Amino acid sequence: MPAEVKGLNEECGVFGIFGAPHANQLTYLGLHTLQHRGQEGAGIVTTDHEEMHQHRDRGLLAQVFKNQADLEGLLGDTAIGHVRYGTAGRDAIQNVQPFLFRFHDGDVALAHNGNLTNAVTLRRQLEDEGAVFQSDSDTEILIHLVRKHIKDGFIPTLKQSLNEVKGGFAFLLLQKDRLIAALDPNGIRPLCIGRLANGAYVVASESCALDIVNAKFVRDVQPGELLIIDRDGLHEDRYTDNTQLAICSMEYIYFARPDSIIHGVTVHNARKRMGKLLAREHPVEADMVIGVPNSSLSAASGYAEEIGLPYEMGLIKNQYVARTFIQPTQALRERGVHMKLSAVRGVVQGRRVAVVDDSIVRGTTSRQIVQMLRAAGAKEVHMLIASPPFKFPCFYGIDVSTRAELMAAHFSVEEMRQQIGADSLSFLSVPNLVQAINVPDAGTAPYGGLTVAYFNGDYPTPLYDYEAKYLASLNKQERRERREREA
Amino acid sequence: MPAEVKGLNEECGVFGIFGAPHANQLTYLGLHTLQHRGQEGAGIVTTDHEEMHQHRDRGLLAQVFKNQADLEGLLGDTAIGHVRYGTAGRDAIQNVQPFLFRFHDGDVALAHNGNLTNAVTLRRQLEDEGAVFQSDSDTEILIHLVRKHIKDGFIPTLKQSLNEVKGGFAFLLLQKDRLIAALDPNGIRPLCIGRLANGAYVVASESCALDIVNAKFVRDVQPGELLIIDRDGLHEDRYTDNTQLAICSMEYIYFARPDSIIHGVTVHNARKRMGKLLAREHPVEADMVIGVPNSSLSAASGYAEEIGLPYEMGLIKNQYVARTFIQPTQALRERGVHMKLSAVRGVVQGRRVAVVDDSIVRGTTSRQIVQMLRAAGAKEVHMLIASPPFKFPCFYGIDVSTRAELMAAHFSVEEMRQQIGADSLSFLSVPNLVQAINVPDAGTAPYGGLTVAYFNGDYPTPLYDYEAKYLASLNKQERRERREREA
Amino acid sequence: MPAEVKGLNEECGVFGIFGAPHANQLTYLGLHTLQHRGQEGAGIVTTDHEEMHQHRDRGLLAQVFKNQADLEGLLGDTAIGHVRYGTAGRDAIQNVQPFLFRFHDGDVALAHNGNLTNAVTLRRQLEDEGAVFQSDSDTEILIHLVRKHIKDGFIPTLKQSLNEVKGGFAFLLLQKDRLIAALDPNGIRPLCIGRLANGAYVVASESCALDIVNAKFVRDVQPGELLIIDRDGLHEDRYTDNTQLAICSMEYIYFARPDSIIHGVTVHNARKRMGKLLAREHPVEADMVIGVPNSSLSAASGYAEEIGLPYEMGLIKNQYVARTFIQPTQALRERGVHMKLSAVRGVVQGRRVAVVDDSIVRGTTSRQIVQMLRAAGAKEVHMLIASPPFKFPCFYGIDVSTRAELMAAHFSVEEMRQQIGADSLSFLSVPNLVQAINVPDAGTAPYGGLTVAYFNGDYPTPLYDYEAKYLASLNKQERRERREREA
Amino acid sequence: MPAEVKGLNEECGVFGIFGAPHANQLTYLGLHTLQHRGQEGAGIVTTDHEEMHQHRDRGLLAQVFKNQADLEGLLGDTAIGHVRYGTAGRDAIQNVQPFLFRFHDGDVALAHNGNLTNAVTLRRQLEDEGAVFQSDSDTEILIHLVRKHIKDGFIPTLKQSLNEVKGGFAFLLLQKDRLIAALDPNGIRPLCIGRLANGAYVVASESCALDIVNAKFVRDVQPGELLIIDRDGLHEDRYTDNTQLAICSMEYIYFARPDSIIHGVTVHNARKRMGKLLAREHPVEADMVIGVPNSSLSAASGYAEEIGLPYEMGLIKNQYVARTFIQPTQALRERGVHMKLSAVRGVVQGRRVAVVDDSIVRGTTSRQIVQMLRAAGAKEVHMLIASPPFKFPCFYGIDVSTRAELMAAHFSVEEMRQQIGADSLSFLSVPNLVQAINVPDAGTAPYGGLTVAYFNGDYPTPLYDYEAKYLASLNKQERRERREREA
Repeated sequence: MPAEVKGLNEECGVFGIFGAPHANQLTYLGLHTLQHRGQEGAGIVTTDHEEMHQHRDRGLLAQVFKNQADLEGLLGDTAIGHVRYGTAGRDAIQNVQPFLFRFHDGDVALAHNGNLTNAVTLRRQLEDEGAVFQSDSDTEILIHLVRKHIKDGFIPTLKQSLNEVKGGFAFLLLQKDRLIAALDPNGIRPLCIGRLANGAYVVASESCALDIVNAKFVRDVQPGELLIIDRDGLHEDRYTDNTQLAICSMEYIYFARPDSIIHGVTVHNARKRMGKLLAREHPVEADMVIGVPNSSLSAASGYAEEIGLPYEMGLIKNQYVARTFIQPTQALRERGVHMKLSAVRGVVQGRRVAVVDDSIVRGTTSRQIVQMLRAAGAKEVHMLIASPPFKFPCFYGIDVSTRAELMAAHFSVEEMRQQIGADSLSFLSVPNLVQAINVPDAGTAPYGGLTVAYFNGDYPTPLYDYEAKYLASLNKQERRERREREA
Repeated sequence: MPAEVKGLNEECGVFGIFGAPHANQLTYLGLHTLQHRGQEGAGIVTTDHEEMHQHRDRGLLAQVFKNQADLEGLLGDTAIGHVRYGTAGRDAIQNVQPFLFRFHDGDVALAHNGNLTNAVTLRRQLEDEGAVFQSDSDTEILIHLVRKHIKDGFIPTLKQSLNEVKGGFAFLLLQKDRLIAALDPNGIRPLCIGRLANGAYVVASESCALDIVNAKFVRDVQPGELLIIDRDGLHEDRYTDNTQLAICSMEYIYFARPDSIIHGVTVHNARKRMGKLLAREHPVEADMVIGVPNSSLSAASGYAEEIGLPYEMGLIKNQYVARTFIQPTQALRERGVHMKLSAVRGVVQGRRVAVVDDSIVRGTTSRQIVQMLRAAGAKEVHMLIASPPFKFPCFYGIDVSTRAELMAAHFSVEEMRQQIGADSLSFLSVPNLVQAINVPDAGTAPYGGLTVAYFNGDYPTPLYDYEAKYLASLNKQERRERREREA
Repeated sequence: MPAEVKGLNEECGVFGIFGAPHANQLTYLGLHTLQHRGQEGAGIVTTDHEEMHQHRDRGLLAQVFKNQADLEGLLGDTAIGHVRYGTAGRDAIQNVQPFLFRFHDGDVALAHNGNLTNAVTLRRQLEDEGAVFQSDSDTEILIHLVRKHIKDGFIPTLKQSLNEVKGGFAFLLLQKDRLIAALDPNGIRPLCIGRLANGAYVVASESCALDIVNAKFVRDVQPGELLIIDRDGLHEDRYTDNTQLAICSMEYIYFARPDSIIHGVTVHNARKRMGKLLAREHPVEADMVIGVPNSSLSAASGYAEEIGLPYEMGLIKNQYVARTFIQPTQALRERGVHMKLSAVRGVVQGRRVAVVDDSIVRGTTSRQIVQMLRAAGAKEVHMLIASPPFKFPCFYGIDVSTRAELMAAHFSVEEMRQQIGADSLSFLSVPNLVQAINVPDAGTAPYGGLTVAYFNGDYPTPLYDYEAKYLASLNKQERRERREREA
Repeated sequence: MPAEVKGLNEECGVFGIFGAPHANQLTYLGLHTLQHRGQEGAGIVTTDHEEMHQHRDRGLLAQVFKNQADLEGLLGDTAIGHVRYGTAGRDAIQNVQPFLFRFHDGDVALAHNGNLTNAVTLRRQLEDEGAVFQSDSDTEILIHLVRKHIKDGFIPTLKQSLNEVKGGFAFLLLQKDRLIAALDPNGIRPLCIGRLANGAYVVASESCALDIVNAKFVRDVQPGELLIIDRDGLHEDRYTDNTQLAICSMEYIYFARPDSIIHGVTVHNARKRMGKLLAREHPVEADMVIGVPNSSLSAASGYAEEIGLPYEMGLIKNQYVARTFIQPTQALRERGVHMKLSAVRGVVQGRRVAVVDDSIVRGTTSRQIVQMLRAAGAKEVHMLIASPPFKFPCFYGIDVSTRAELMAAHFSVEEMRQQIGADSLSFLSVPNLVQAINVPDAGTAPYGGLTVAYFNGDYPTPLYDYEAKYLASLNKQERRERREREA
């Protein structure tokens, strides 16, 4: 049950709170607001400063917490929670976070958003040295690294371990009496701090989760930071100074909630500006502008406003989830698409329609949208994509880690247009994307402090375990560009 | 789990199909598209022209049809289906439709959208004459009426029975070899006919359910019609000529899907016109226009377009359903509201906001919206309602049958404004509502062929069982108006 | 999940209680003790003298009452309950009893053990007169008969109706303020009355259900009786005087719990005497006697005691229920049998074994038992059946209503022995069966007040709906015997 | 849902099979036969020699394997399975076996019956060296020990590890291409080998699990053995020569199935002999002998046969599981006992009854049985226990690890008799117990190769982690006896 019609999935959302009555309820509220970041599993671990309590399961939050008792058993004023996206793994409940590890010298819980790029190598080394893993998740590596040198003390060995793991990560750790947050050296995944009226600290993947618990936004967690929250308050520390902001641009384009503010930028506003700049870059002649609900509505209204065309509801999204049972005929399978999205005949019939979408991954949905609109009588269908062509995989936590499935990796824009069946197809340029988002904290970081590797192949970190396979997937031209960039 | 944030609920949706391969799958698709009309139960009955097959249960369609087998057991090329809204009755599964009645001389299935106004009286009479009811539903009355005189033949006695039941109703009946549809004499509930490419007929509450099965819209069922579909095709008949169109205006304002076309009017377009006429009737000074998602977005964009202000996303709706477990403190309960709806601070902060909503029932949601927007920094909040004040109950199938819960029944507009806490509050007038919808089929019917009784107390039928209690709820002025109208 | 290895199923058990605190809990206890009479559904209806409350579902009692709340909602000091055996009918929950019928002039609940022999005829007549049935059950007929003439008063019309229904039946009815019990004119199904220390009356299918609620046995309900229990106590009435005891002999042979006392006879003792008389009638040369668990252990110990051989545990029954998934090979399917029953190699190896079983229905189990014992090394296997050959169907509530499946209806004892593969096969005679049970209340009733029709075709009532098909199933000799008996 | 009325629980059963088509189905059958050894969880891991597959969950086998698909996904011709008894631990599914550990150099699955006596110490050491445990189970220790020195090769390090763990254990391990079985140096838990007609090897806790898959019994696994089964057949190896048979006597007395043959002794026969020797040791004057079903029926029939009294069914066990919801009154709670066991009034009334039971743990059940029989009219009730007084805890896998709950640890036989309310109370002596079982393999091992520590405190191994607490629980006399034994 993916959140959106597009087959693009974030890997997780995290939420933590220290020292607040009803921490279980507040964490539930926070996770609910982050549900768009992961729908395949959810969990909460709390500490009452004596014992730690866990509840987790596969499915949406509302399926995981079915009964009052599921929440009530989570005692204490301090908690971390997690919503998870993940392929249906083997015996998957073991992979649902937060993980809770029991040790004779103190339990530790762990929740993670992101992806480690050297996980395979590290796990192999650890296993050779005696480690027994309980999940298929890269997340678990951190705790094995920490335990290996636990005699040096928890925080020192944690800092050391955070320097060993590579990639994009936002970690929350919970111990009996403290909550710890750590962000990767490029700040690829978002993470922010808030504060309740009673002084309790909250940490969350997106600021919308602060709003719902009535926490005041304090600041974004910065690359390389290690924050420790305990009874004495917030201790700001770092595990590395070798940092440079490169937050994932897809958070602004697609993943984050429109009301979240990330590094000072309201997501809805960034999207609206993408639409406006797209209108300047690619104005089309049409009778109306429509957006693909829900993630593209901001960009579509920006496009309409800038170009001066009416903004209409030409596509509607069915808010109810449906199971598509194996359908016996091709015709029936095609009908199945309409269970998520429908064209509004009374709006588009006989009209020239400019459709704004946020991105194209496989191209399947775009083709169906064009077909749907034409079947509803649209005279012309112009596809306008409010981001650049998605050509290169993500290794930092988005579920696109091979090029095989990326339409733009294999076809030119004109070829894509033909396959999609649109009358025209246009994309926003990388510079305009950077300008639309315009991260104030960016400083001198390349691409305005954003990761735009999905569009140009310029990754902010080495790729480690993924390097060889990635290189093999590049064509000559791309390989040349990469060499030049690295020179 | 109501579909929308407002506490206003339709009573049902129906779908029927005769002579199509995979009738079970097509009916499932059709019901999925009608899910917004009822989320508390669903079912399908099919006939393979030998036997009839039933599957039904409480909950959303996706909960009722959990396994492939649930659908596969529904053999045959002919089916009727139902989605149900209803208060959690006693042993509620008995109340989930379609009902399937087994008789030695042939089984009959029955699905119903609407509400009978003389159900209590009829049931009492029937019980005194020996009838044993199996549900608490008014729907079941029809079959008892039919069986009482079954010796006169099924169709004649059905016609007779349809003249005995009063109120708003759209009935689908299924027998071994035919599908029957009947609409009340005022056509209060919508019902339309479509046709598949193979010639099979489809009947559905809304045209969006025709679209998803790729059926071509044929026409709306007319008041007083009795349609019989069998192997020889569609037989058009009537059970009464004493008819006059008075379709429920709330279908256009709130219930129906934006892409449905009812009596020639696309719902989205009607709503957009309501927004435009509201802008002419009540222009406000503001920096932007926002809509309450999802049902008010059309009206809001119409308002913005007409008045020339930017249309923004100032409120967002969480697409995930959440359980709100009993929350221990008032503060937490208030947070719970935000699980459905959030204000976008980055959009509204420091701005004058014109909020367009489709209607006000209890006023609770409106008050919360105003609070939410102010908490997010809005400088002014103007509430603009794209329908007239909802003052009188509905007895034809909307879940508002007492005046007690209707805010506008008890307070003036200014009093409502104060309670809601808005800077201004305005409603669309009845004439503008009628003009915005503008039903082409209306002929000389009052109010352009619409039921607008919710706004002015002028009901298209006598109230029968409800009359006494309703009268008692009126104030002097209302009673006088009623007498004048009836004179 | 049949209770026993044999495919022979009782149709139900009933329990009622009037005026006892915790009636819900007591009824649950009572039904638990009657669970062997039906495992496919269970339910309880209570009255708090204002309203009636119902909970029922498919499955074992422990599956139907899963949560504390399921029982707690059943308010009041008066209740009836039911455990059901029944083929998995269509939408089967509608067939689970007690039924609860809602009427404007007072609700009625109904629970039934037995089978009506004129149900088809009565239902057809009722439907032609307007009745709408909600279940496939014959039980429901009673309420339709009662309602048809309800103007004559409830009790008079109930008496009239009890004279219209034919067959074997024990009915419990519950109204707001009274509990009613009625037994068929031959008392074919058992039903007894008990009394709690506080004076509250209890009615149950077997006395073991009185024991568990600590009720003192008062007496068996007699054929033709109509008992009414209300605040004024127990009112003893009759609806007919045309009665003669013919209690089902299979209750003693197989169905009832060993600790139940029916018409003065402890079931275990009757079974032990069957074993003893079988030993006198058919002594065998063997090294030990074993019983087929659990229902034949009493008879086996009687046989062993009488003949002076050691009584051993040569077969054991697995107390855990197993699902037998479709097994891919014949060998695996045969293994499946052993999931219920195993031979004890260490006991039977190299020995001559006398196996006592209570009855043979299809013969399948007997053949498997012989195979199993031989595979475990038994030198000789002698099958001794503690009842006569089961040749004729039951129309009064046992799940054997056609002759097709009855081995003894088609084969001689010697043919049966060969098919089963035993070294010898012997049955108890009808006179010895009658003598073993020896009902004190029998008076001059034929066969000592027992129904032994399963063994000799001499039914205590006309067969009505079943007559024609039954006659067709008889062979020449049987038809002649029947004519002679009826002459 | 304990199997028996007594609150005494075995910790587990294991089953393994190598190289048999339908290994999943055969393992399911095997586990079904071992279900009495554990009802709180079950699982199967298979290997198809490429990958390993796992399915496990809490509950009975029939609850764990609900759908055909649960079993079908377990591909391959080689499997291990487990049924588990265990207190409802935290997040208990993690504690359900077989465990499956994934390593880059090959997966390992693990199933265990028994209890390690130095688990706490080992786990603490391992955690200090970096180990991260995933369960609360002592079983997991073995894999951490093995991985710590994995570079020395799997089998050598496994042998080393088996020498480090102490207590009673029967381990099954599964790798991609082999199945490994290991038994503790005292053979405290039973484990045997069988062979299918096709040559495939089977290993199981009890021989009844060989029977159901049609495997021929080969031999019991001997103390200290390490058996490796692969494509080349069975490799017999040992990890220690320091062994001495001390099989748990409670397996014969109570746990094992009557049809199992352990070290050459059929369990039913051993029990029958216990009954006979008990009759010689403690003959009583009575009218009949009855057994407490089901586990004491063998001993009871032995007692009856030896003493020459009739063996009767005076108590019956309800074969249906019931939930006992919190019962509001003491009277109701007492009724709850009868849900499992009932006295047969028609048998015991006015008679002197000799009741044979296998053991007394807490004494609660015995007291209830006496009460029940007296309430049913028994004139005298003599309790005869077919084992010695249970005075000392078990540290090898039976759920009795503190003395607090053992009635015989605190009271003399006469005090126990008074508390139970019996007319007399007698126990079998240790020498007679040893003689009744009479293990042929015992050689010169003390107590005929049995662990009888529960009766005399003479444990076959040091107690390690349990030593201090155990010592503290002894009284002066017991401490003196212990010192003398150890001297």
